[in-house]
Amino acid sequence: MLFNISTPGVEIQAALQDKINQKTKPIGALGKLENIALQVGCIQQSLNPQVRKPCILVFAADHGIAAEGVVNPYPQSVTAQMVYNFIEGGAAINVFTHLHQIDLKVIDAGVAHHFDPGLPITHAKLAYGTKNYRHEPAMSKDECVSAIQKGAELAREMALKGSNTIGFGEMGIGNTSAASLLMSALCHEDIETCTGAGTSHTGEILQQKITVLKEVQSKHAEINGTLDILATFGGFEIAMMVGAMLAAAEQKMILVIDGFIVSTALLVASKLFPGVLHYCIYAHTSDEKGHRVLLDYLGAEPLLQLNMRLGEGTGAALAIPLIQSAVAFLNQMSSFESAKISNIPA
Amino acid sequence: MLFNISTPGVEIQAALQDKINQKTKPIGALGKLENIALQVGCIQQSLNPQVRKPCILVFAADHGIAAEGVVNPYPQSVTAQMVYNFIEGGAAINVFTHLHQIDLKVIDAGVAHHFDPGLPITHAKLAYGTKNYRHEPAMSKDECVSAIQKGAELAREMALKGSNTIGFGEMGIGNTSAASLLMSALCHEDIETCTGAGTSHTGEILQQKITVLKEVQSKHAEINGTLDILATFGGFEIAMMVGAMLAAAEQKMILVIDGFIVSTALLVASKLFPGVLHYCIYAHTSDEKGHRVLLDYLGAEPLLQLNMRLGEGTGAALAIPLIQSAVAFLNQMSSFESAKISNIPA
Repeated sequence: MLFNISTPGVEIQAALQDKINQKTKPIGALGKLENIALQVGCIQQSLNPQVRKPCILVFAADHGIAAEGVVNPYPQSVTAQMVYNFIEGGAAINVFTHLHQIDLKVIDAGVAHHFDPGLPITHAKLAYGTKNYRHEPAMSKDECVSAIQKGAELAREMALKGSNTIGFGEMGIGNTSAASLLMSALCHEDIETCTGAGTSHTGEILQQKITVLKEVQSKHAEINGTLDILATFGGFEIAMMVGAMLAAAEQKMILVIDGFIVSTALLVASKLFPGVLHYCIYAHTSDEKGHRVLLDYLGAEPLLQLNMRLGEGTGAALAIPLIQSAVAFLNQMSSFESAKISNIPA
Repeated sequence: MLFNISTPGVEIQAALQDKINQKTKPIGALGKLENIALQVGCIQQSLNPQVRKPCILVFAADHGIAAEGVVNPYPQSVTAQMVYNFIEGGAAINVFTHLHQIDLKVIDAGVAHHFDPGLPITHAKLAYGTKNYRHEPAMSKDECVSAIQKGAELAREMALKGSNTIGFGEMGIGNTSAASLLMSALCHEDIETCTGAGTSHTGEILQQKITVLKEVQSKHAEINGTLDILATFGGFEIAMMVGAMLAAAEQKMILVIDGFIVSTALLVASKLFPGVLHYCIYAHTSDEKGHRVLLDYLGAEPLLQLNMRLGEGTGAALAIPLIQSAVAFLNQMSSFESAKISNIPA
């Protein structure tokens, strides 16, 4: 499993920064959009970068532990029900991608439900959910590698179809627990720091979730190495995202990173190939507790803080218009010289 | 001068909140977008509110004090040059409104330059800039009332043309000084708290700006009453925005409030008719120092924090897609019942 992720050349940065500074606005006045314009210009090694055919891939899968109901307030069957909701166009991610003209693909990475092959989703099921990591690793190493390879294949397909901007989303009842375990193992943070409300936990129920996750950590205390950690605690949707992210970075796409779960997939990807981080734009800071700590760990400054905690790639869908705005100002705004506007003497 | 601004009925709130809570997502998981959906539903007294023909009005005017160059790094002539830039389509606000399909109107409220009447701007010039408030009030009370009335007329025109969502922007070299003086007088805050870098000030030059503004305050220490304060320190673009905001609220439009200068116009408007605040959505927190304090004073929580400080309505243009997203989820997302998805027992 090899991903050939190159580091964007820095030689173009000075010319990009100069172009940004010549735009008819005070230096730095477009704030974070200027950073995005610079980053996208570097990724594409172009003074005139483009956002082409933006897409969001939503990976859905089930988690063995969720069948017990000890870490998730919604029943496990909601994962499959939400996939049908995606198909019908009734979920938040459908509404946002439709409004902002973003292509949406839903992938069955491992939902514990049989979907008719004729349904308009990408059928990439590896199993009917992972195994329960209270008792055994969530997946075998082979399954884990297969998931990564399948995710990579899907990202390459989007690149082949002409997309250069890819957002990631997920749906999986119980997957905040997997994300917390991955974050705790890979960032060496206490599970308490990494564990939040998920879809609805508070108070005693949150405490119960933490107690269960601590048991899980004790059981798998010997686990080491990024891939083994991913196989033990991960979900198929998370492993598939890892592969999709790595392949997307290999293709020099702009990766739009959504909330907590997606960020833990990126954490895994970055432990395998740190170069992936050059290609990432962070969409939003989730209200899920561990996310801010994880973002700090990744050195990330998201574009949006809207107190959202929904997943599905909803934050990515809302951030893409901002990324388009950044690229548009770089390409379309006039310069002080072209508009004959008096600048401040340097 | 009377504006008949009604308070949106609160009876509909429970039904709106119930509709939001029935959407296929955990309670509250769309964060600030849920607040926006609720507010827009209340403004329009509808469970199916709409964002129709969003527009941004950019008011441009010059300030007497700017001719001296003691409070502004850019020369006064840049105001007119930027109006030509708006006409040519080369400014940031042109790029953002074009990208997000927002109607843009540029208004000469009082630029110190003769524009050919054939130019595609709204010609509403009250004078060739205000007078210098170091020596005399910026405008007469009559001019101030005329500006408010003209602004009101422009907002009513947009409503008549079918727009129900109006953003505000401004261009005026020296207008952060006017805004700081208005904020200081109306919020009873020290001028230091209200004064920031403007387009580029730092260090000694910022100190000089503060010293000049303190002199101005001493000279006009007797001034009292919102309209007199506006006439003494304001700009024509600010006074015209006050009128436009009040008329827009009277028309039950959604008001999208941009950065520091626009927020001080709203501060003035709210001192005259507090009901205007019901109709306001705050686009972004400006990097200009006084803005955060002013937002707290207004009880405002903006949608975006992008470290921007450009004006022109750029923050409003970037926030409108988020407002559209909020309204879209309220109208288009399925409910737990319609999608047959298991909800958490209440």
